Amino acid sequence: MFIKNCWYVAAWSHDLPDTGMIARTIINEPLVLLRNRAGEVVVLEDRCCHRQAPLSLGRREGDDVRCMYHGLRFDSSGRCVEIPGQETIPPQARVRRYAALDRHSWIWVWMGEADAADASLVPAAVGLDDPAWSLLSGNIDYNANHMLIHDNLCDFSHIAYVHEKTFGGGDDRLAKTRPKITTLERGIRVERWTLNAPGRGYAGVEAGQDRWLSYDYLVPGVLLMRSENHPAGTAAKSNFAPPTSEPAHANFTSQAVTAITEETSRYFYSWGPRACEAEADPTIPTTMFDLAKRAFEEDRRIIEAQQRNWRLRPDAEPLVIGHDRGPALMRNVFDKLLRKEQGSDPVRPWSRAREA
Amino acid sequence: MFIKNCWYVAAWSHDLPDTGMIARTIINEPLVLLRNRAGEVVVLEDRCCHRQAPLSLGRREGDDVRCMYHGLRFDSSGRCVEIPGQETIPPQARVRRYAALDRHSWIWVWMGEADAADASLVPAAVGLDDPAWSLLSGNIDYNANHMLIHDNLCDFSHIAYVHEKTFGGGDDRLAKTRPKITTLERGIRVERWTLNAPGRGYAGVEAGQDRWLSYDYLVPGVLLMRSENHPAGTAAKSNFAPPTSEPAHANFTSQAVTAITEETSRYFYSWGPRACEAEADPTIPTTMFDLAKRAFEEDRRIIEAQQRNWRLRPDAEPLVIGHDRGPALMRNVFDKLLRKEQGSDPVRPWSRAREA
Amino acid sequence: MFIKNCWYVAAWSHDLPDTGMIARTIINEPLVLLRNRAGEVVVLEDRCCHRQAPLSLGRREGDDVRCMYHGLRFDSSGRCVEIPGQETIPPQARVRRYAALDRHSWIWVWMGEADAADASLVPAAVGLDDPAWSLLSGNIDYNANHMLIHDNLCDFSHIAYVHEKTFGGGDDRLAKTRPKITTLERGIRVERWTLNAPGRGYAGVEAGQDRWLSYDYLVPGVLLMRSENHPAGTAAKSNFAPPTSEPAHANFTSQAVTAITEETSRYFYSWGPRACEAEADPTIPTTMFDLAKRAFEEDRRIIEAQQRNWRLRPDAEPLVIGHDRGPALMRNVFDKLLRKEQGSDPVRPWSRAREA
Repeated sequence: MFIKNCWYVAAWSHDLPDTGMIARTIINEPLVLLRNRAGEVVVLEDRCCHRQAPLSLGRREGDDVRCMYHGLRFDSSGRCVEIPGQETIPPQARVRRYAALDRHSWIWVWMGEADAADASLVPAAVGLDDPAWSLLSGNIDYNANHMLIHDNLCDFSHIAYVHEKTFGGGDDRLAKTRPKITTLERGIRVERWTLNAPGRGYAGVEAGQDRWLSYDYLVPGVLLMRSENHPAGTAAKSNFAPPTSEPAHANFTSQAVTAITEETSRYFYSWGPRACEAEADPTIPTTMFDLAKRAFEEDRRIIEAQQRNWRLRPDAEPLVIGHDRGPALMRNVFDKLLRKEQGSDPVRPWSRAREA
Repeated sequence: MFIKNCWYVAAWSHDLPDTGMIARTIINEPLVLLRNRAGEVVVLEDRCCHRQAPLSLGRREGDDVRCMYHGLRFDSSGRCVEIPGQETIPPQARVRRYAALDRHSWIWVWMGEADAADASLVPAAVGLDDPAWSLLSGNIDYNANHMLIHDNLCDFSHIAYVHEKTFGGGDDRLAKTRPKITTLERGIRVERWTLNAPGRGYAGVEAGQDRWLSYDYLVPGVLLMRSENHPAGTAAKSNFAPPTSEPAHANFTSQAVTAITEETSRYFYSWGPRACEAEADPTIPTTMFDLAKRAFEEDRRIIEAQQRNWRLRPDAEPLVIGHDRGPALMRNVFDKLLRKEQGSDPVRPWSRAREA
Repeated sequence: MFIKNCWYVAAWSHDLPDTGMIARTIINEPLVLLRNRAGEVVVLEDRCCHRQAPLSLGRREGDDVRCMYHGLRFDSSGRCVEIPGQETIPPQARVRRYAALDRHSWIWVWMGEADAADASLVPAAVGLDDPAWSLLSGNIDYNANHMLIHDNLCDFSHIAYVHEKTFGGGDDRLAKTRPKITTLERGIRVERWTLNAPGRGYAGVEAGQDRWLSYDYLVPGVLLMRSENHPAGTAAKSNFAPPTSEPAHANFTSQAVTAITEETSRYFYSWGPRACEAEADPTIPTTMFDLAKRAFEEDRRIIEAQQRNWRLRPDAEPLVIGHDRGPALMRNVFDKLLRKEQGSDPVRPWSRAREA
């Protein structure tokens, strides 16, 4: 059970070459991605309508793709324009075309009907070429259902435990206190100040500052987060409102969780400080990114273990705790959109977990 | 759903030693193969009737086989002749014996009731010791359902695409035009002339000749093909009838697709030119065979990819095209025989594909 | 379908450290094992009640365990004593605690309700520290259902075949004749004399002696066996009663088969001669143990092959033979206990095999 009417991240833009094709699977559907001669991204069903051979093993012929099993040729709209050995091409000879966009360094694919694709719903990720930031990028694969990763990212109390030695810095206040969480139309917003925050060992992030953290988590699993460090007292002065003054340090991360199948997911991420900070100290982006990579492996370890336990007992009824509020609100958003587009209640791990 | 009343190729004759036993699985049934002291092939169920231990892990005792789990001993008919620790041997103490033949360098096993085995139905493959031909042999395993391989072999239009750089030689006329296809009692016959055919780089196969290709495809998946090259004009002179004159070149290939399980298959093949051609140029057999081996890997790549897509969407309804005529006629033969022996309609990938 | 109200061997005592935790799965249930500061073994469900993360990836805090996903802390009884970020702890916030014992060098876990655990039902295995014996120990994993291993161990006629070259010593009398088998409350007892037994090549076990062999096989799969060699004539003199005189040689083996999942099992074993024999010839324990290790690999080979055949044909109806009496009586014990604790008939491989 997956949401279809939304934009999934299929690949990094730089992983899709100007010529050739790449194959990706999203929510169990095989896709072939290519750029046409005008530079636009074209995404088709990676499955010939004749015998199911993947078009990604086929041949580009201009903007068309020829299946290299029996030679059927498809144009960019997915329409079959040639069937070797016959004149007539039946109207049902086509593969599905998906709406796709190349934006913010990601290839986004709308998994619902292409006609319903709404470009205004692409989350406002920050691209790798954004001049304001100095970002590095990567991705890892999970042997886990995407919902378990969403749950993880909608509740940062886990930082105190999973990331005790990386992101956490030995500070368990992310677990002892709660952030402000707001429901959005297609996700949630999480915000919090941390006073007297631990340092990170580079300029701008000294121990004892006020730290502001704010992120949106949007369907089908896109996290956009800004962190800022301010001098001690900044939060109190503004009565804990979002900061408006120039920070001592700021960083931004865009992350996207894409469901491949029920039990596999791909996790894309970029992270980095403001460009001006990287200019002042060129080691900062790498330092930050290496920490993030280690931390993401910590997440993967616990979530894949969780998945194995869930497989042994798929009907487990989870205990609901206070910190589940973020995951629960996010699941409500998923439920609402699933009901709207599929007209039925979702069946998902722990679907009964509701707002605590 | 597999046909049982037919001869499956279980092994190359040279892979079955005079002593000892080998284990093979055909259509999900484990078999143990051996040669008795008279040199006849004996094939028994590879599963002791007591506790299902494989007899192939047992011990030959003359023509008998002793299960080396609890010592039950079986004669060549499958009858249990000794149960250690007791005098009485109940009549149901037996393993199934299958009818088997050693012919044309292959071990053939009749998977239906042995009484119904009809030696006259063994396809007329050409053995490796046939003095008229100089043949080399091999086999590869597929992670794919056997029907997908039958489909492939019943429609050579794929040669223009899958084998563009091997068998195809850049000539797409196998796809642009159709061969003559005839239904046989237990298969189909495919025949065609290709005029001005591409050369192969060895004596007898020069570019520009008339090429004759004729094969039978017989249940449960045996392809017997003869190709001949003739001087340009030969086909037209005979009004495109099968050739009767001496060819400049001729080669023969015997191939057999054996279903192991629903998603695994074994593919046996031999190929080579006439003995007289190999005598004149001893490099020709290897040149031909190396080309075939590369081409068979090309088939495997596309068919295993097709299988993976089919697994993602087992209910896919294929588009039927003109070139499906061969596969569809062959599926009709399978359907007819399955209905006859099992009294019900088959359930198979794309069983709805019918003659186009 | 597994018996729950019995003691399963989860690990060797020496594999459970004083600090830290180890994870084990028994009958599909994930367990975390630890020793508290008083040295007692504590076994909890290895699955946090919040989100199913394994506690074994968590942190010991004194005798408590903190889940390192969101920080829930559990005491030794399985009760949750802290939920970060909230004051209230609902009563259902707990993981299951299993009754466990450290006895005879094994960690035993009662898989039924802890209240019903009955320490008097722990089988009387011989610990590695028993001064009367000189034992070595090991364990191997099977890709096979535990019942197939129980069947194997309840019928030693297989020694003549599976272990022809190890335990069997070329003597097939274990297959040609039957032992005395008695049903116990929770298992079976197997006893036999072998006259003129083959030698083993070390002092005390010379060819031609009378050999006494006696073992109990107890749910859920514990074998406790004593073998003795006596001067020829001993058995006849006592009218084949159990020996009472001092043996020339004696050895003891404790073995335990623990079901991990339906198709995986772990097999624990120790073996060795009397301490006085090891003192006289220190090579004997290793000689005996190496033979046992080779023999256990022989068992694994045939049983895993049997499992593969059984997977191809799960509904196979086995032929019942005389030597099935041991396995059948043992299956009756399993059936009786399963009916008692689960109120229904078991569904297991070959459950129809009854006393022959």
